[in-house]
Amino acid sequence: MLPFARVTIIGLGLIGSSIARGVRAGMPGVALSGYDADPEVRETARALALVDDVADTPGAALIDADLVILCVPVGAIGAVAAEIAADLPADAILSDVGSCKASVVEALQAALPAATIVPAHPVAGTERSGPEAGFAALFHKRWCILTPPEGTPAVAVERVAEFWRRLGADIDIMAPDHHDRVLAVTSHLPHLIAYTIVGTASDLEEVTSSEVIKYSAGGFRDFTRIAASDPTMWRDVFLSNREAVLDMLQRFSEDLSELQRAIRWGKGDQLFDTFTRTRAVRRSIIEQGQDDARPDFGRGDH
Amino acid sequence: MLPFARVTIIGLGLIGSSIARGVRAGMPGVALSGYDADPEVRETARALALVDDVADTPGAALIDADLVILCVPVGAIGAVAAEIAADLPADAILSDVGSCKASVVEALQAALPAATIVPAHPVAGTERSGPEAGFAALFHKRWCILTPPEGTPAVAVERVAEFWRRLGADIDIMAPDHHDRVLAVTSHLPHLIAYTIVGTASDLEEVTSSEVIKYSAGGFRDFTRIAASDPTMWRDVFLSNREAVLDMLQRFSEDLSELQRAIRWGKGDQLFDTFTRTRAVRRSIIEQGQDDARPDFGRGDH
Repeated sequence: MLPFARVTIIGLGLIGSSIARGVRAGMPGVALSGYDADPEVRETARALALVDDVADTPGAALIDADLVILCVPVGAIGAVAAEIAADLPADAILSDVGSCKASVVEALQAALPAATIVPAHPVAGTERSGPEAGFAALFHKRWCILTPPEGTPAVAVERVAEFWRRLGADIDIMAPDHHDRVLAVTSHLPHLIAYTIVGTASDLEEVTSSEVIKYSAGGFRDFTRIAASDPTMWRDVFLSNREAVLDMLQRFSEDLSELQRAIRWGKGDQLFDTFTRTRAVRRSIIEQGQDDARPDFGRGDH
Repeated sequence: MLPFARVTIIGLGLIGSSIARGVRAGMPGVALSGYDADPEVRETARALALVDDVADTPGAALIDADLVILCVPVGAIGAVAAEIAADLPADAILSDVGSCKASVVEALQAALPAATIVPAHPVAGTERSGPEAGFAALFHKRWCILTPPEGTPAVAVERVAEFWRRLGADIDIMAPDHHDRVLAVTSHLPHLIAYTIVGTASDLEEVTSSEVIKYSAGGFRDFTRIAASDPTMWRDVFLSNREAVLDMLQRFSEDLSELQRAIRWGKGDQLFDTFTRTRAVRRSIIEQGQDDARPDFGRGDH
């Protein structure tokens, strides 16, 4: 039995459009409606027939929905929740896909104190944005973390869990604060570092941008993928998860200083030990199916 | 006409064994001999028939060679050059594949003052190591940078350039110092950052290693690929290119502090501007054929 009969997706970018495609592929029979604040995105969504009905107001998209998923940047969650407050069906479950959860839970509860809220974070994505970038397999074998506030009915959590399982995801349940600290290290800090190094490389005077691009296969190009992610989404992530990100950044900076000192003083053994330890992490990630086992991510014709 | 008739490869790891495979594929008729200091690697190389003859001493591998390529960690270049000094044929060209060039040129000239030296750096690799990891296409459409010392005969440089073109590479010629500054930013700094963040994530107390691995698809896993690179090779790179790496690291740290401050003080516009600028770099890299155009590097079944 399908966990929901009528699903509304607010925000039809990479994640929203991937959910729509995943529902079509894995839950035929579910009625899908959608809305996006950007009229061009709504047009594209209609042309792609991403959902059964693209509404011109969020309220119209919500009619008879039993699951409403907000797929908007986390900084917009509060405003969107307030905007739909009057039209949200009383028995609908409200969810989202934001990369930070404490601030999202707070914003949703403030705007919709009576709603049943099951926040979700599918740990998946690509560097592309927009309704054309989505695909049904995006969530396959990825983790989706649910962070229901205390007192959320277990049956509501289970229905959302089942929805994500049918999109191909594995489910974990976590407290919002713990989620934010885990993701600060596995996702937010890596993005911040990648954005920084790509910026640093672009600003050098004695090495030209053209040289940086030409010789990027030495490692730099890996960082540019992450640093091509959606700027609005990531601005909001750093502002919303500020405390955890700054804390992880502090630890990273300390570790970097340590390696800097090892290089300055020629401590080869210390460098070798560090570089040996980090190798094992990659092995575990591949063993657990969280990355492509082929060398170089299976790039090109290798 | 083939640029060389008899090529000797000293060091049969990822790069050395890829050169051997590339010569077999693109220059049939070239006689190949090889040597590796590790007896197990020599055994594997024999089993794989990587070269026509795997010698048990470097001297024996050099007989009649007109091109000798040292494919060893840059910290070992000086010692290996001294070891082969007595056996290097007088008319052979000596080359290498090291990731730093100023220290390599210095070490080679000190050990072999009379030799014709054409140092090379193919900007290509994967996170795998050893003779089984190599493949002939590794250098296809990658840049190979030659850094001949002043006074090197142009015809020697051209022969080495032609050799690399036949392995599929494009050629650039650069002064060793400039090479080292360019690669410090496009390769060495990215590796140092990746090693650091993987270390930082492994050492947290409130986020477990198991959580870091599970949720690595949020960005972290990208860094683990680079941080799985060969520890000996990278120890030597940082010790050999110390000054340029420390300089780039200083700039990176300044830029990181700037973003840290923007997060702390909630400067969303500054974050947004930085994240928008970095997006363009990725586009240029893909336009110039230096990375896979598919989202997420074409990972998995996307």
